[in-house]
Amino acid sequence: MNEKLLMTPGPTNVPKRVLDSMSQSMMHHRTSEFSSMLSQLSERLKYVFQTSSDVLTFPAAGTGGLEAVLVNLFSPGDRVLLVSIGVFGDRFAKIAQAFGLEVDKLEVKWGMGAAPQAISDSLKDSHKAVIVTHNETSTAATNDIQKIAEMLRGEDKLLIVDAVSSLGGIELRMDEWGIDAVVTASQKALMSPPGLTFISLSERAWEHIGKSKMPKYYWDFEKARADLNKAKPQNPYTPAVSLVAAADEALAMIQEEGLENVWKRHELVAKRVRSGVEKLGLKIYTHGDYLSNTVTAVDIGERAESVKAMLEKEHGIIISGGQGHLKGRIIRIGHMGCIDCEMADRTLRALEDCMNRA
Amino acid sequence: MNEKLLMTPGPTNVPKRVLDSMSQSMMHHRTSEFSSMLSQLSERLKYVFQTSSDVLTFPAAGTGGLEAVLVNLFSPGDRVLLVSIGVFGDRFAKIAQAFGLEVDKLEVKWGMGAAPQAISDSLKDSHKAVIVTHNETSTAATNDIQKIAEMLRGEDKLLIVDAVSSLGGIELRMDEWGIDAVVTASQKALMSPPGLTFISLSERAWEHIGKSKMPKYYWDFEKARADLNKAKPQNPYTPAVSLVAAADEALAMIQEEGLENVWKRHELVAKRVRSGVEKLGLKIYTHGDYLSNTVTAVDIGERAESVKAMLEKEHGIIISGGQGHLKGRIIRIGHMGCIDCEMADRTLRALEDCMNRA
Repeated sequence: MNEKLLMTPGPTNVPKRVLDSMSQSMMHHRTSEFSSMLSQLSERLKYVFQTSSDVLTFPAAGTGGLEAVLVNLFSPGDRVLLVSIGVFGDRFAKIAQAFGLEVDKLEVKWGMGAAPQAISDSLKDSHKAVIVTHNETSTAATNDIQKIAEMLRGEDKLLIVDAVSSLGGIELRMDEWGIDAVVTASQKALMSPPGLTFISLSERAWEHIGKSKMPKYYWDFEKARADLNKAKPQNPYTPAVSLVAAADEALAMIQEEGLENVWKRHELVAKRVRSGVEKLGLKIYTHGDYLSNTVTAVDIGERAESVKAMLEKEHGIIISGGQGHLKGRIIRIGHMGCIDCEMADRTLRALEDCMNRA
Repeated sequence: MNEKLLMTPGPTNVPKRVLDSMSQSMMHHRTSEFSSMLSQLSERLKYVFQTSSDVLTFPAAGTGGLEAVLVNLFSPGDRVLLVSIGVFGDRFAKIAQAFGLEVDKLEVKWGMGAAPQAISDSLKDSHKAVIVTHNETSTAATNDIQKIAEMLRGEDKLLIVDAVSSLGGIELRMDEWGIDAVVTASQKALMSPPGLTFISLSERAWEHIGKSKMPKYYWDFEKARADLNKAKPQNPYTPAVSLVAAADEALAMIQEEGLENVWKRHELVAKRVRSGVEKLGLKIYTHGDYLSNTVTAVDIGERAESVKAMLEKEHGIIISGGQGHLKGRIIRIGHMGCIDCEMADRTLRALEDCMNRA
C-alpha cells in the first residue's frame, strides 16, 4: 500500500505487530484454534467495553453495526429520541428512519455536545430509547455519556451509544455508567484494519430483542450470542478470520498498556495537538467544553483543501477535510489508536510548513 | 495462525503473495491510492463474473450478500421460486422468509442437482424470480446454471444465483448465460481471506431495485453503485481496506493464469480427488451427473468424524464433515482456489492412512 502517516479519524495507523498477525496461513473458522482466538478476542473486547456482557463481532463497517442494533432492538413505528451533534448523528437518524422508526431528532449546534438537560427536556413517555453519538468526528466534539446516562437513570429508556470513534480512546464504562447498547468498529482507536464491528448489549436490552418485529437474518444477535456461548465459540457465518486475528493482537496491546493508560495517552496527545494548533495562531473549531481526545477540528477557512492536499503531497501525512457544510472550511486531524506525541509533533511541524506556503 | 493445509469448502488456502498484500501499512479509504485499487479490483471482478455490469463489494460474509440481494430486489409479499439442493439452498430460503417473501421451495433430493424441467414445472406466473444455488457445498452437487438460464430465457423472471462456492472455480458466464444477480464471497475459489461479499446485477435487475419496498441502509445497492462510479471510486462506508488489497492481488493471480485455465485446473484436481477416493474403495456421495469441481463428498459412514479428526491431528489437513442429516456420515474435501494435484495427492495419501487406522 503506502507508508503514509494516517492522522485521520479512521482508518488509523495499524501497528506492524497487528499487520503481521494477518500474514500467517489462513485458519479454518470451525477449528479449535479459531474458537480459542474468538473467545480470547471476546474477553478482550469485554475489557475495552468495560462490560461483563457478551460483545458480538460481525464482518461489517461500523454503519452496519449501527443498523444491526436498530433491527434487533426495535419494531417499525417505535419512537426514539436521537441526539445529533453532527454528520454521524444525522446518519444514525437516517438509518433509523430507513427502518421505519419514529425519530424525534434533537439537533445540537455543530461544534457543541448535548446538554443532559436538553435531552431531558426533549424526552417523551413514548420514547423507547435515547440514541447518542459518543464522539462526533465531523465536528471533533465529545458528548458526556456519563452525565447523560446519570440523567436517564431510573427512566425506562434504552441508552444506545455510537462509540465508533471513541471506544478505546476516550473513557467509556458501559456497565458502570449503565449504557444499554454500545457499537464500535475495528479501525479507529482499536488500531486494527477496517471490516469488523463490535456490539454489546445490557441485559435490559437483551429483553427487548425478543419483542423486535424488524426483519433480520445476517444481523441476528440472538443467533450470534448463542454461537458465541457454545462450548466451541463460533460465529453464525464465516467470520473475517484475518481481521479477528488482527483485532485480537491489537487488543492484546491495549491490555498490555492498560486501558486507563491508553485513555491518558489519548488525552495527552490531544492536548498537544490542540496547543500546537493554537501556537500556530489557528482556531480550534470545537467548543472548549466538548473537545475530543481522538480528533481535532481546525477552522482554517478556504485554505483547508489545499493544506490537506499539501500535507499529503509534501509530507506524506493524511488528514481529513470538513464534512457537510464544513467542507472546504476546516481540517480534521485524527489522533487515535496507534498514536504518540512524536506523530503529533511531526504533523504540527508539517502543518506549520503548509500554512506558511498556502 | 497455523500451517495446516485447508481442504475445506472455504475458507481456503490463501497464497503467500495474497497474505503479504495485507501486511503493508494501512491505506486511507478516501485517498487516490485506494480509489485506484478499488477500481482495479472492480475491473478484475467483472472478469471473473464474466459481466460488463458493476460488481459491488461489501464488508460482510457471503450470507450478508445473499440478504443484500433480497432486500434490494424485492418487497415484502413478493413471490419467488427457490430451488434448494441442500443446506445453503435452505438457508437462502430462510433469509427470504425472514424478509417476508412468499417462498415456494422446490426441494431436490440431496446429492442431486435440479432438472431444468422440474424448475419449469414449478414455475408460476406470480413468481418474480427463480433463486438457485450454483454449487451446493453440503452435498457437493453443482446445478447446471446455463441450462436453467436457457429454460428461463424469454420468461419475465429474475434469475438469482448463489455462486459463493463456485465463482472462480466452476464455469459461470453471467452476461452470456443471462443471469440477473450473482453473489459470491472472497474466501472460496477466489482464494482470499473471508470478509468480503461481491454482487453483480443485470440491467433488468437494476430496474427492479427502484421498486423495492424492503427497508435497507447498509445494503443499499444504488448508493454503492453511485459511489463506485464517481470520478474517484469509493464505498459508501469504510471498506475493509486490507481485504480489498488481498482480493485485488488474488484476482490478479487468476487473471495471470487465465480464468478458463483456472476452471480447467479445478476440473483436473476434482477428477483426481474423485478417482483417488474411488481407488480407496470409498463411495462418492453425489450423483454422477452433478459432481462438483470445488468440493467432493465421500460417504464413509460412522467413521466420518474420527477420520476428519485424525486427518487434522496426524496430517495437519483440515477437511469438513457432513451438515444436516449427513453429519457423522460423510466427509467433504474442498478443492478450490489455491489448489493443485500435489495437494490433492497429499490429502488422498493421508485419507488412505486414516481409513486404514480408523
